[in-house]
Amino acid sequence: MSLLLKDGCIITCDEAGSVIKQGAIGIKEGLIDYLGTYREDLDEKYNRVIDVKGKAIMPGFVNAHNHGAMTMFRNYADDLKLMDWLFNKIFPLEDKLTAEGAYWGSSLAMLEMIKGGTTAYCDMYMFMDKTAEAVMQSGMKASLGRGLQGESGEGMDYRISEALELYKVFHKSGNGRIRVNLAPHSVYTCSPAYLEKVAKTAEEIGASVQIHLSETGDEVRNCVEKYKMSPVKLIDKAGLLNERTIAAHCVAVDDEDMEILKTRKVNVVHNPSSNMKLASGAAPIKAMADMGINIALGTDGASSNNNLDMLEEMRTATYLQKVFLKDPTAIPVDQVLAMATVNGARALGFNNTGEIREGMAADLIIINTEKPWYYPKYNTKSAIVYSGNSTDVECVIIGGRIIMEKGEILTLDEEKILYEVQRIAEKLSS
Amino acid sequence: MSLLLKDGCIITCDEAGSVIKQGAIGIKEGLIDYLGTYREDLDEKYNRVIDVKGKAIMPGFVNAHNHGAMTMFRNYADDLKLMDWLFNKIFPLEDKLTAEGAYWGSSLAMLEMIKGGTTAYCDMYMFMDKTAEAVMQSGMKASLGRGLQGESGEGMDYRISEALELYKVFHKSGNGRIRVNLAPHSVYTCSPAYLEKVAKTAEEIGASVQIHLSETGDEVRNCVEKYKMSPVKLIDKAGLLNERTIAAHCVAVDDEDMEILKTRKVNVVHNPSSNMKLASGAAPIKAMADMGINIALGTDGASSNNNLDMLEEMRTATYLQKVFLKDPTAIPVDQVLAMATVNGARALGFNNTGEIREGMAADLIIINTEKPWYYPKYNTKSAIVYSGNSTDVECVIIGGRIIMEKGEILTLDEEKILYEVQRIAEKLSS
Repeated sequence: MSLLLKDGCIITCDEAGSVIKQGAIGIKEGLIDYLGTYREDLDEKYNRVIDVKGKAIMPGFVNAHNHGAMTMFRNYADDLKLMDWLFNKIFPLEDKLTAEGAYWGSSLAMLEMIKGGTTAYCDMYMFMDKTAEAVMQSGMKASLGRGLQGESGEGMDYRISEALELYKVFHKSGNGRIRVNLAPHSVYTCSPAYLEKVAKTAEEIGASVQIHLSETGDEVRNCVEKYKMSPVKLIDKAGLLNERTIAAHCVAVDDEDMEILKTRKVNVVHNPSSNMKLASGAAPIKAMADMGINIALGTDGASSNNNLDMLEEMRTATYLQKVFLKDPTAIPVDQVLAMATVNGARALGFNNTGEIREGMAADLIIINTEKPWYYPKYNTKSAIVYSGNSTDVECVIIGGRIIMEKGEILTLDEEKILYEVQRIAEKLSS
Repeated sequence: MSLLLKDGCIITCDEAGSVIKQGAIGIKEGLIDYLGTYREDLDEKYNRVIDVKGKAIMPGFVNAHNHGAMTMFRNYADDLKLMDWLFNKIFPLEDKLTAEGAYWGSSLAMLEMIKGGTTAYCDMYMFMDKTAEAVMQSGMKASLGRGLQGESGEGMDYRISEALELYKVFHKSGNGRIRVNLAPHSVYTCSPAYLEKVAKTAEEIGASVQIHLSETGDEVRNCVEKYKMSPVKLIDKAGLLNERTIAAHCVAVDDEDMEILKTRKVNVVHNPSSNMKLASGAAPIKAMADMGINIALGTDGASSNNNLDMLEEMRTATYLQKVFLKDPTAIPVDQVLAMATVNGARALGFNNTGEIREGMAADLIIINTEKPWYYPKYNTKSAIVYSGNSTDVECVIIGGRIIMEKGEILTLDEEKILYEVQRIAEKLSS
């Protein structure tokens, strides 16, 4: 079904940060086939015409770091020291999580992400086949990795088996909506030998790698003490760093680390809310971006955010840099919009989305800007970043297919998801 | 008309952070006359019964520092150095603002504040008689101050005249909804002699004083250079500090300053979004709170936030402290909820609101917690602070009167406000 969005304010997120007022986007066979000023003669060329006057259209957000099923633990325990939180609260619950819990937990994550205008995301967790099912159901795009951890560099382990199975079954499935990556958890859960094994496996099949990297000063200090080098250098040595690598956090990186990330063309995912809530620190993303490193944006899991709101994440990202650098010009509107869209798309290996351009996939969101916080209407881009609300997203289109319309998600049963999540959570926490 | 809210989760914001599940609140003559578990026999005692099952009720937010009419300038210019922004962008627009612009601009602020669950706020600006009219119309509570600045300690100046007129006409008007304060802008716009004059005037009439205080390191450095003492010491010397004083920002305060604020029982208003966006810094609010200083919360004007979202402000406040202090336990849920409610009420001199307690004014908000981001339902307070959205507020009651119901504001003409604001903004910026 072909679709025309007519007469809206189009925020392309292209390199120039172009905005087209009274614009139109034509969609055919899942791709954008027209982008420009609206003209009445366009109407008849499409099956369906949606009037988007008074609305903004932009690329869907790409949440480049998340643990979908961890919605199961959100608001369970907060305001605790990290180790207390993890070991005494989260892990005991996580140990009891089943495939069913992972299915409904990641379904809840997708429900929430779609509502807030996220069209693609990256996930690292367990029971990823269940999450893949949920992704298929939801209509979203996703890069999924079964979390890997281990000691031995020899032989096979069950986690890597599951990862390879996931890759075999799901990579490029759903008409390319799903990608599968290899996801070694971190340097403190994987030995160097194990990391090397994962790197080789990734190389063999041409898969991306995602990893938690230098999230805290403690992680770096412990790594240096144990291995005599920083986590960045350690995983570089293991062969994990290349232009397909998705490195989440990168908070405690020094100049040498950043130089390596740049040289290897690593994709860095910035997760400011999580880094703030867990008191990890402020990642030097301005410095990294200035060096030409691709910086994407993520919410991390819902238990350390505690929502999956990418619009709020954009605002948090720019405000955190501004205050940490004492620079009100840091990470301006166009830059943070790119972080939340095209940069994430490139990081995840979705190369035909993230910007609004003819030929690109039609992964779009329609934002209702007829809300008080958009007034006066001086600058729509600034308004979205600095005063907008994720609930202003009223329509989500992925691959040309309407996934959410007038705030109602067409691909997921909201009532059932909330019911199942609550039921399972009560069991987990009893 | 008497009103019963039945069967909801009541977040009292009392000192113990009490929560009453399956609770009920009875309202008679604008006051809370029943607070406790719901019982069916309560129904017949009230004219109207609202079922709040699946919802949370809490005190309305108190936005303790705002410049309502500055919604007129929001998203006009962002990502600039402070002086460039102020002098080249904001002041030129502000110079053209008329009483009409202030009326509609502050009406827009109130529209937005009510939508997000704010029931009382503090304002410092010009044309405050127009703002007072808008407050009367809106049904909100407000403490209003005509911004004061000057050199001379002798005689009268027109700003103080206006302030006294405002006090005479509006203080305790609207059945106590409106309070008027004296609002000397800052130490860099008021000479010590002028500050002393304001202090004496405030003392004579028993008015509160609000002031911008130590917002930036530059302000402090310049003050020390000029007057050989910090802004806190300067205004203390002028006689401005007492338990009725509302000191906004207090970012660049040192230990001696904080000791003075504590001794004088000054109310500090923390404005984290503004402090981050303008790169002013992170106010040491945990330290001040630990010393027993009353810390309230504010959004500042919409042109440096850029919304008036108190729920987001709570989240920003706790996250900023957590990351700056590298302490994930800093400013936990109960503390930040109090900052956004009862602490602000006390700061503004509204002593019978801010908590849900029998005998208190019925200034309440009803939050729809049947949204994905509240699930699983482990902890409603945490959910509101860490994953909720201000648009979840669906009903606002002030003084027992329903101001907003099902998201629709009953006291303000939303369409007209947006129209007028846009019309005036276009004129201002042409």
